[in-house]
Amino acid sequence: MPTRDLPIGVFDSGVGGLTVLASLVLRLPGEHLLYLGDTARVPYGSRSPETVLRYAERVAGHLLGRGIKALVVACNTATTWALPALQATGRARGIPVVGVIEPGVHRALATTKSGHVAVIGTEGTIRGGRYTALLQEQRPDLRVDALACPLFVALAEEGWSEGPVAALVAEQYLGPLRGGADTVILGCTHYPLLRSAIQAALPGVQLVDSATATAEATAALLAREGLLRRADQGGQARFLVTDNVERFERVGARFLADPPRGAEVVDIDDADHVTWHAGPARAGTHRSGQ
Amino acid sequence: MPTRDLPIGVFDSGVGGLTVLASLVLRLPGEHLLYLGDTARVPYGSRSPETVLRYAERVAGHLLGRGIKALVVACNTATTWALPALQATGRARGIPVVGVIEPGVHRALATTKSGHVAVIGTEGTIRGGRYTALLQEQRPDLRVDALACPLFVALAEEGWSEGPVAALVAEQYLGPLRGGADTVILGCTHYPLLRSAIQAALPGVQLVDSATATAEATAALLAREGLLRRADQGGQARFLVTDNVERFERVGARFLADPPRGAEVVDIDDADHVTWHAGPARAGTHRSGQ
Repeated sequence: MPTRDLPIGVFDSGVGGLTVLASLVLRLPGEHLLYLGDTARVPYGSRSPETVLRYAERVAGHLLGRGIKALVVACNTATTWALPALQATGRARGIPVVGVIEPGVHRALATTKSGHVAVIGTEGTIRGGRYTALLQEQRPDLRVDALACPLFVALAEEGWSEGPVAALVAEQYLGPLRGGADTVILGCTHYPLLRSAIQAALPGVQLVDSATATAEATAALLAREGLLRRADQGGQARFLVTDNVERFERVGARFLADPPRGAEVVDIDDADHVTWHAGPARAGTHRSGQ
Repeated sequence: MPTRDLPIGVFDSGVGGLTVLASLVLRLPGEHLLYLGDTARVPYGSRSPETVLRYAERVAGHLLGRGIKALVVACNTATTWALPALQATGRARGIPVVGVIEPGVHRALATTKSGHVAVIGTEGTIRGGRYTALLQEQRPDLRVDALACPLFVALAEEGWSEGPVAALVAEQYLGPLRGGADTVILGCTHYPLLRSAIQAALPGVQLVDSATATAEATAALLAREGLLRRADQGGQARFLVTDNVERFERVGARFLADPPRGAEVVDIDDADHVTWHAGPARAGTHRSGQ
């Protein structure tokens, strides 16, 4: 069973989930955080559901092997395809698992006045349709538009979040949404970096960023389970990646005020994901001299 | 040992290598072609050298297990980090291995009049420095500029190869090259799709596309080894992917006049790459009901 002083595991396919990590640091300053970016297999957004599930189970298995008290799936695509499976296993082990979609959905429902919401995200997230399904499950009369904006991720990672290219790309994607929804969910953890370009293309629209909503949901869950550390105890963030530390630290610096440093490369290519299903917890092997 | 009627294996991390496949079809209409897009692990361009080598050896091992008479590494990043290893093993098995970089280098050297060449490509290809090293090995007084243009891949895959966004991105990247090199190598197999936007940003510059040069080099090599089929025998192209057939066929249609169809999903996650090193040739397991 998890104990209070274990870190919260946070995972994403790459650097995008760092926007969620930043919100967790702000909301839960007493918590240790263990972030894993699956940079050997990024991006998840264009992969098939089975592949995303397989990768997500491996990553979750690795974090579990290291010891965590809760798991935050800080990736919309992984939440779309893998959350139910991860939550089922988490329940059996007493580890709460939080995704990024449901908190964003609740915030959007509380925000919209017109009853017309839009969600933008990667191909995988939009094709998965989880946002639309959850929104309309809560409020069947809601009108929902869903739109994939794949180039936004490349722009954010290139450091072109502002300027003429971001403005033009935002206009091409979002122009057709103008005059429609009064609330737009940023359904990809990269998109908060493009917030000003997105807002400029959609003046007057309320943008919902799941990161802060997810941090709030995580805090509530830990409180309910009696697993919260006190804020004044302080917390540390540590970083794991499956490939290319140099790029993770360089691109990650665009996502955090305090850039990620000292990231460690781990190899989760093997059968680690099996441990998430059933076997005893086992730490993944660290890559050595490959 | 390979026989004449076996297919030529062609591999890339995803759809980009289809520009090379198209050139092979034109130059060698009598050949069977077996294309493998490693779409479960695309893109290679932002991965570390060790990871690219590992992935490339797996893919090569899988193609070898199916039976090929030659291997074309239709990916600049894989050529950068894995070609020497793949060629060494290929030699031991009598399988010629061709990369995309050397043919492009030779064509650029034959094209430049001013002795000033530029190469554009992914982060991995540019960081790897193979183009610059080979160009200056052949001609030490050559001036070479090298520039990573990561957004071009996302633009080509999104189908935004032409229009205002492509023009603006090309201008941002390539504006600084104007008035410099007289010859620019398209050092990424995606870039031929953006040819008109690139040419508009660099008027008067000669663009070198490695795809046709690679097809020419492959033809010469097969002729030397006595492995060519006659053009009038006709040839077939077959497609393998490691993930997401739907996306491969949809995005691949932007790369080929005759869109790729009937692609088969193969699972090369396991120890297939071992066969490329040493063991007996073995076909990879096909994914079933995962």
